[in-house]
Amino acid sequence: MSEKYVLGLDFGSDSVRALVVNADSGEELSSGVSFYRRWMEGKYCQPSLNQFRQHPQDYLDSMTEAVKEALDQCSPGVRDRIAGIGIDTTGSTPCAVNREGVPLALLDEFKENPNAMFILWKDHTAVEEAAEINERAWNWGGVDYTKYEGGVYSSEWFWAKILHTLREDEKVREAAFSWVEHCDWIPAVLTGRTDPLTMKRSRCAAGHKAMWHEEWGGLPPEEFLAGIDPLLAGLRERLYEKTYTSDERAGELTEEWAERLGLPAGIAVAVGAFDAHLGAIGAGIKERTLVKIMGTSTCDIMIAAYEVIGKKLIRGICGQVDGSVIPGYIGLEAGQSGFGDVYAWFRSILSWPLRSIIPDLEGIDDGLKGNIIKAVEKQIPVRLTEEAEKLPLEESGLLALDWLNGRRTPFADQTLKGAIIGLNLGTTAPAVFRALVEATAFGARAINEQFINEGVEIDEVIAIGGISKKNEFVMQVTADVLNMPVKVAESEQACALGAGITAAVAAGIYGDLRKAAEKMASPYTKTYYPDKVRAEQYQRLYERYKRLGNDLTGYFKN
Amino acid sequence: MSEKYVLGLDFGSDSVRALVVNADSGEELSSGVSFYRRWMEGKYCQPSLNQFRQHPQDYLDSMTEAVKEALDQCSPGVRDRIAGIGIDTTGSTPCAVNREGVPLALLDEFKENPNAMFILWKDHTAVEEAAEINERAWNWGGVDYTKYEGGVYSSEWFWAKILHTLREDEKVREAAFSWVEHCDWIPAVLTGRTDPLTMKRSRCAAGHKAMWHEEWGGLPPEEFLAGIDPLLAGLRERLYEKTYTSDERAGELTEEWAERLGLPAGIAVAVGAFDAHLGAIGAGIKERTLVKIMGTSTCDIMIAAYEVIGKKLIRGICGQVDGSVIPGYIGLEAGQSGFGDVYAWFRSILSWPLRSIIPDLEGIDDGLKGNIIKAVEKQIPVRLTEEAEKLPLEESGLLALDWLNGRRTPFADQTLKGAIIGLNLGTTAPAVFRALVEATAFGARAINEQFINEGVEIDEVIAIGGISKKNEFVMQVTADVLNMPVKVAESEQACALGAGITAAVAAGIYGDLRKAAEKMASPYTKTYYPDKVRAEQYQRLYERYKRLGNDLTGYFKN
Repeated sequence: MSEKYVLGLDFGSDSVRALVVNADSGEELSSGVSFYRRWMEGKYCQPSLNQFRQHPQDYLDSMTEAVKEALDQCSPGVRDRIAGIGIDTTGSTPCAVNREGVPLALLDEFKENPNAMFILWKDHTAVEEAAEINERAWNWGGVDYTKYEGGVYSSEWFWAKILHTLREDEKVREAAFSWVEHCDWIPAVLTGRTDPLTMKRSRCAAGHKAMWHEEWGGLPPEEFLAGIDPLLAGLRERLYEKTYTSDERAGELTEEWAERLGLPAGIAVAVGAFDAHLGAIGAGIKERTLVKIMGTSTCDIMIAAYEVIGKKLIRGICGQVDGSVIPGYIGLEAGQSGFGDVYAWFRSILSWPLRSIIPDLEGIDDGLKGNIIKAVEKQIPVRLTEEAEKLPLEESGLLALDWLNGRRTPFADQTLKGAIIGLNLGTTAPAVFRALVEATAFGARAINEQFINEGVEIDEVIAIGGISKKNEFVMQVTADVLNMPVKVAESEQACALGAGITAAVAAGIYGDLRKAAEKMASPYTKTYYPDKVRAEQYQRLYERYKRLGNDLTGYFKN
Repeated sequence: MSEKYVLGLDFGSDSVRALVVNADSGEELSSGVSFYRRWMEGKYCQPSLNQFRQHPQDYLDSMTEAVKEALDQCSPGVRDRIAGIGIDTTGSTPCAVNREGVPLALLDEFKENPNAMFILWKDHTAVEEAAEINERAWNWGGVDYTKYEGGVYSSEWFWAKILHTLREDEKVREAAFSWVEHCDWIPAVLTGRTDPLTMKRSRCAAGHKAMWHEEWGGLPPEEFLAGIDPLLAGLRERLYEKTYTSDERAGELTEEWAERLGLPAGIAVAVGAFDAHLGAIGAGIKERTLVKIMGTSTCDIMIAAYEVIGKKLIRGICGQVDGSVIPGYIGLEAGQSGFGDVYAWFRSILSWPLRSIIPDLEGIDDGLKGNIIKAVEKQIPVRLTEEAEKLPLEESGLLALDWLNGRRTPFADQTLKGAIIGLNLGTTAPAVFRALVEATAFGARAINEQFINEGVEIDEVIAIGGISKKNEFVMQVTADVLNMPVKVAESEQACALGAGITAAVAAGIYGDLRKAAEKMASPYTKTYYPDKVRAEQYQRLYERYKRLGNDLTGYFKN
């Protein structure tokens, strides 16, 4: 009866997951998932412009639903012994808030305005602003504030998105007192501490995406920011100086939210962090191991001791932040802007005739049409994989670039695009799919190579995320291309589990994250070992992939 | 009652068309079409290896059907006054024959052997042999026998296909006494003059595809041929020295075929030629006009006076042959290896989920499934075109190479492949289609540019073939990219009409082809004029296309 439980909340790109975890063993008791309703309807997004926005109400509604679903499966005894909540979200996913810390889209005036919503990590509308930030950082004569973020500021990140929105939308500009990251805001809401000036901000988000660093005492100085664009002037002092690691407590669950969620009031709420970083904890990250969260995109996380990194700047990655994963280590982040999304893109191409033609066919019942579309779309990924797996390596002669959503690592460049070359009249859909799978694996390889070239060695990969469980073909190709073992964590929800681990520390059950993770992190179910022959073949193809990327980069620049 | 009629037979890639034409006016009275049965079942082909073979029985069966269909629509009075038959076929489409001139696949022993069948123009299995022929022609120290064929021998052509087959298939090698082109064989069959040694061979096929030229008294000498490979030794003397233009008579229709087809016995049968060359006649070709036959591939035909060409060699095209189109002019041939086939490829990609998944769905009537697949496939090209046309030029940022079937002109190279670059997660199926349409138009532009650079000026294009009638969007893009007017010939069957024109000359109704064409060639229905603004935009995109082609060529070479 002395067992304690924690709740991990994982806000992904499409849905939020709630996971009830035994704080002693890490056992996952129950979970709930809720897809963001407005998002699933395609609202507020313009994929052709790479504009992806999410309504804050979606987060609140889905969080409530998911938690209820998870708790409904637990006995009241468990529910009452939940000692803390941990939170991870996507990021950089910032939103403009008013003086009270309310996201503008929650106000009547802005409720349908995409610029007043959370700007999802994969939104690339701020390409120009990112270029200007880099220009400034590299040439202003002072410190290069991108230096701990891989040396290149991305359009996916905090300041670029803010500047783009301030330029784009006068009303939002006037109403925005401050800005929050998604992972700052959820703990703030749950603890009632939404004042933007005192809200506990995530070290992880600040360090990796907002150029926050202790070396310059927080965010970059006013002089630097205002020099990018006067529109940024004055914002710095309405943001934050201090940041918090996710072993810390953001506050306590309010009465209001306790009631809404069906949890005990006053329990600990941990400081939030990004999904990948807490996923890495859930997956049992250690040194020389790269944890790869394989979903729509990938986030690749490593930790390195101070002695390994020293004062060295790791170039081309998405940041090196003290304590962004586990306090006492430098957290290193990298990632692929598109992974599962690349496959989803091809599925959407293949679905086009279904969706645009079948509904107009005459003489067939609408319900039946809907069922056929649904059934075929469900089968597309299954059959693509089956058929692609049968194709011999290299036989198709296709070579693809996986940059359909730009490239995050190495050396972030969101202007890059995808390509498929080597097509002939006999090229089949499964052959194209295989080339795309190989391309995403080559993208993974390029990241490993970047770490290794920068002196951060990698012995193995731990994979988490949907793809690591769902597609053995993709996983085997990845192991072959990386030419190292890829272990799959058992937990279906390593991010939520990691969030639960932070909750256990915030609640005081463990003294620090390492101890908590030792007890609670996920075991592994399966290891994909590289095939020697295929690894050699892929080595040659990978060289071609790199050359093709170099040769085509110029074409994507205008 | 004095009106005379002729019959034009046009053997295309998928079907044969028969056209009854009024020999005085060129009026098209009736027509019939028959698709090759075995071919439509996909027999004897391996698209992934670019192996495309056609059974000779398909030609005979479909010819009989198509002629009957055409004649059934005519009064007996018309049928009895048909004075001649003209024939065009695809090419180079050669086949091994025995001593009697019977294609080996018509013998029991070879009836299922693809190597004993006609090797369709687009079959690219002989890439290596073409390279060896070029190697020999360019370096053997004697005459470069490719010089009147654009200076590069193609894997699509006569000698390469013969050599590949002789190497590949010992039984065919032993049984093959000689080889015929499809356009040699049909007139031979109809006139009963099938002896390979005396059969009247087409000047058009011989000159454009078999390195036949008066300068060296026929086919290249034994010494040259045997030096490519001893397997070719001795074949030359079992082929031909003399060739015939298609204003000449191959012979007279035999009793047997007259009965089978329902035509008067003893009428004139003209010497055959390639479809494009007779299509050019049907379309009213004249100097400074490029006739573009736009179908699965394109064939581009020009004629030039001796005074314009003189002794000059036109580089990079598919041949310059005295009288291959109209006696008294040098016929010039060029073409795109894939045009409609490029679109068909994309349709086949989009059809993949329909064809591979819908048949397996449970609980739905098989007939209904078939109907849905058929209805959707029929709509795909229509909807792709509608949606692609709405997209603004350049907006999609895509750029494609149209070489999915290699490149025929300029500078034949069947090892080249297609590519699509600039993909992002928002790229839609219609956007890909639009890029493919633009790429095929760029391919057309490259041919025009090659002619012009070689001193053969072009004022306008006359388009014939299915695409010229069926797809206004493709035609407008082509006019914009070419930046010149594109006139569409009214005749739906300009090739068959051209064949009819040759029949009228062979039958003695006209003294020569020019006079016959003046009376009989097709009028024009529509002219596409280039839009000035789009033409300028496309000029820039075309420069990018050329650059991309150069940059990617190396990737297709291994």
